[in-house]
Amino acid sequence: MKKTTSPAQSGSIQATPSSSDKRDLPADLASDLNAIDPGRRRALLAGLGAAGGAAAAGLMAPGRAMADPANLPPNVAEWSQVLGPGVDAFPYGMPSKYEKTVIRRYVEWLTATPESSINFTPLYALDGIVTPNGLCFERHHGGAAEVVPQDYRLMINGMVDRPLVFTLDDLKRFPPESRFHFLECAANGGMEWRGAQLNGVQFTHGMVHCVQYTGVSLRRLLEEAGVKPKAKWLMVEGGDSAGMNRTLPLDKALDDCMIAYSMNGERLRTEQGYPARLVVPGFEGNMWVKWIRRIEVGDGAYMAREETSKYTDLMPDGRARRFTWEMDAKSVITSPCPELPCKQKGPQVIKGLAWSGRGKIARVDVTVDGGRNWHQARLEEPIMSKCLTRFYLDGWEWNGDPAYLQSRAIDETGYVQPEMAALQAVRGVNSIYHNNAIQTWRINPTGEVENVRLA
Amino acid sequence: MKKTTSPAQSGSIQATPSSSDKRDLPADLASDLNAIDPGRRRALLAGLGAAGGAAAAGLMAPGRAMADPANLPPNVAEWSQVLGPGVDAFPYGMPSKYEKTVIRRYVEWLTATPESSINFTPLYALDGIVTPNGLCFERHHGGAAEVVPQDYRLMINGMVDRPLVFTLDDLKRFPPESRFHFLECAANGGMEWRGAQLNGVQFTHGMVHCVQYTGVSLRRLLEEAGVKPKAKWLMVEGGDSAGMNRTLPLDKALDDCMIAYSMNGERLRTEQGYPARLVVPGFEGNMWVKWIRRIEVGDGAYMAREETSKYTDLMPDGRARRFTWEMDAKSVITSPCPELPCKQKGPQVIKGLAWSGRGKIARVDVTVDGGRNWHQARLEEPIMSKCLTRFYLDGWEWNGDPAYLQSRAIDETGYVQPEMAALQAVRGVNSIYHNNAIQTWRINPTGEVENVRLA
Repeated sequence: MKKTTSPAQSGSIQATPSSSDKRDLPADLASDLNAIDPGRRRALLAGLGAAGGAAAAGLMAPGRAMADPANLPPNVAEWSQVLGPGVDAFPYGMPSKYEKTVIRRYVEWLTATPESSINFTPLYALDGIVTPNGLCFERHHGGAAEVVPQDYRLMINGMVDRPLVFTLDDLKRFPPESRFHFLECAANGGMEWRGAQLNGVQFTHGMVHCVQYTGVSLRRLLEEAGVKPKAKWLMVEGGDSAGMNRTLPLDKALDDCMIAYSMNGERLRTEQGYPARLVVPGFEGNMWVKWIRRIEVGDGAYMAREETSKYTDLMPDGRARRFTWEMDAKSVITSPCPELPCKQKGPQVIKGLAWSGRGKIARVDVTVDGGRNWHQARLEEPIMSKCLTRFYLDGWEWNGDPAYLQSRAIDETGYVQPEMAALQAVRGVNSIYHNNAIQTWRINPTGEVENVRLA
Repeated sequence: MKKTTSPAQSGSIQATPSSSDKRDLPADLASDLNAIDPGRRRALLAGLGAAGGAAAAGLMAPGRAMADPANLPPNVAEWSQVLGPGVDAFPYGMPSKYEKTVIRRYVEWLTATPESSINFTPLYALDGIVTPNGLCFERHHGGAAEVVPQDYRLMINGMVDRPLVFTLDDLKRFPPESRFHFLECAANGGMEWRGAQLNGVQFTHGMVHCVQYTGVSLRRLLEEAGVKPKAKWLMVEGGDSAGMNRTLPLDKALDDCMIAYSMNGERLRTEQGYPARLVVPGFEGNMWVKWIRRIEVGDGAYMAREETSKYTDLMPDGRARRFTWEMDAKSVITSPCPELPCKQKGPQVIKGLAWSGRGKIARVDVTVDGGRNWHQARLEEPIMSKCLTRFYLDGWEWNGDPAYLQSRAIDETGYVQPEMAALQAVRGVNSIYHNNAIQTWRINPTGEVENVRLA
């Protein structure tokens, strides 16, 4: 690659680099940036003086460091008069500083330590169906394992013809596949079982995210190892310090699971299982083992801690529902919501998300009067299986009276998202997991939105 | 929201916060994190001593700060023995430190200043069809304008019944829509016109990215203003210091354009036009005006600088092709490529991207012998209009001999991506823009991959 020095670069006049130039850059990338580029601010107009002296020259200031707001023409936005950061400023980009409240949040009292806890996706602030990787909720049992990719190994052992160990490079040599899927924690909405608890859709429903995964079919890997005829179950185990493990039925493993190494185009994030995780489309999140290091093939369920003492549903008669893997159809209105009150009367954008672990969303209904009248929502393409679907109700005009907003998802199997009363009639009130009940937002005359439970 | 203090938090024993805990956090978010969470590392096992003294206690170290690699059991990965970062560590997540070379890169000699330059998406490192926002290439004419969202305005004036000015909140009150689209700079591949120049798919083809945009239909806004019957063109103008502007035909504006405020779920990034940009599906990138502040409706093309002296194609006879908006079908193999050599003989994953400004990709063919034999590639769903499509050629075994890899896209209109010789037979060699020729990668016996031009 040939390289020449431009006149502007060789000139002796340089604007003083502003300390804010790299303010959004993590240390790692900042040092990398320094390696590939001096990152100097170049004075655009070589004949002008140093910082501060040239701002009076006119409408276009010669560089950020030279812009003095006091000298800018009135009635023209400052950003239209100064040079912004160049293409060398942010090798890996970050959100605008004006969006800094849009972050994953956690609830301090929920668990004893943040290493065995969860945080929540800010659903209220999101559009479409893709969750940006930086906002995908996290669930850890021993913190996010920081696996060195060169040292990563995945073992397949147990009832197989050929026990195998794969490196990351090995996994990447199989034919790849990519699919969009939601991932929902079984405990999403768990705090709502006995009444409205948390005033914000980030906290009531934020244990869900949706990205495009890329990886290798688990079926393909199991074929490589040769699963013995009597095998029926897999034990899947993570490399984190919790040694997080679960049982997975072989049928599901041979259906649509994958070992993923990418999400939304780039490599998995550390907290999402870098460099490789299990993807179990439509099934509860804790089966999607992160930092996956071992798959043992067997003929029975392993009854691991995370499928016995946890992730089961205690029923009213004292028995526990177990192996409740598939996430039932669910939906929620993400605007308006407690974080996004109605700012004025008149037309409102009602938007939300729907998903089902059993396939595609077929229909979503929305009510603004607590279920007396339902209106069919507009569903947005692409509608994909076991993936978030975005819906809208257009044309609702709020007259300032109290309103009760709900959404109800129906999936392609005909399953209808239930009301909480119907769900509790069967399951009782002991549950923590698998709350897919219809959610109600009450709009107060002030426009504020409350999380409420309708009788 | 009720808040209690857990025993672990009130305990007096705290691991010393490691300075590396927030190393990937930009300053803005770090201060925000401090506001919502003290960020302290909690000692998991309350009975153990302070940092350093407890590592010998056994397999699970009580906290990162206490882990001393010298005391860890052998043959067990360190990351399986220590607690990783908790859910409070990264409110907005960043890529793994092991992926720090995957960044946008620019070419210093290409332009006089980085504020009027371009950087490139690392296509070689990406999977699927979604480009993460932090890796979407940038093109600026006056740097990235840092618009204050509360002060943002969009004016529609000219040949309309009702000149209008919208705030950002106004735009968000219209029915939203989301669509996945690629955005390609007309100059993508421009340096390749007269011969292979740049050894890396990031540089030959990296002026393209693909995200899901959300916004309001431009047609809807124009209807609000009431376009007069004789209007035929729009002048669209950005709020950056370059006052970047372009002409857009009214027909296109009324077809599928939108004013977008979100990309991949979250708000637009600063460098992509925060808080609002024009989306012109399938058309060359410089029409997708960022920080859009004005749309003037008129009856003739405006002949702006960026559609006359630039973004036109000088033909062999001295005339210039102009208004060449639609991006013709194109494809490129992203692996193997100069950045991703073949590491060994045997099975190789051949993968790539295809796109067309005229609709969906219908087929992609791949050759490994410089075009003597073509093989139909596997296209991955979803295949969407004016969107990247991921393709694969499975099953190619490299025998170690030199190989010439090419891909050829065919879109739903039947258009076939041309060879460079065919393109130059019509366009000559003066062009900078609209190079959609077939790309060749030569695999050398060492496995290294070179950018070459076949006769």
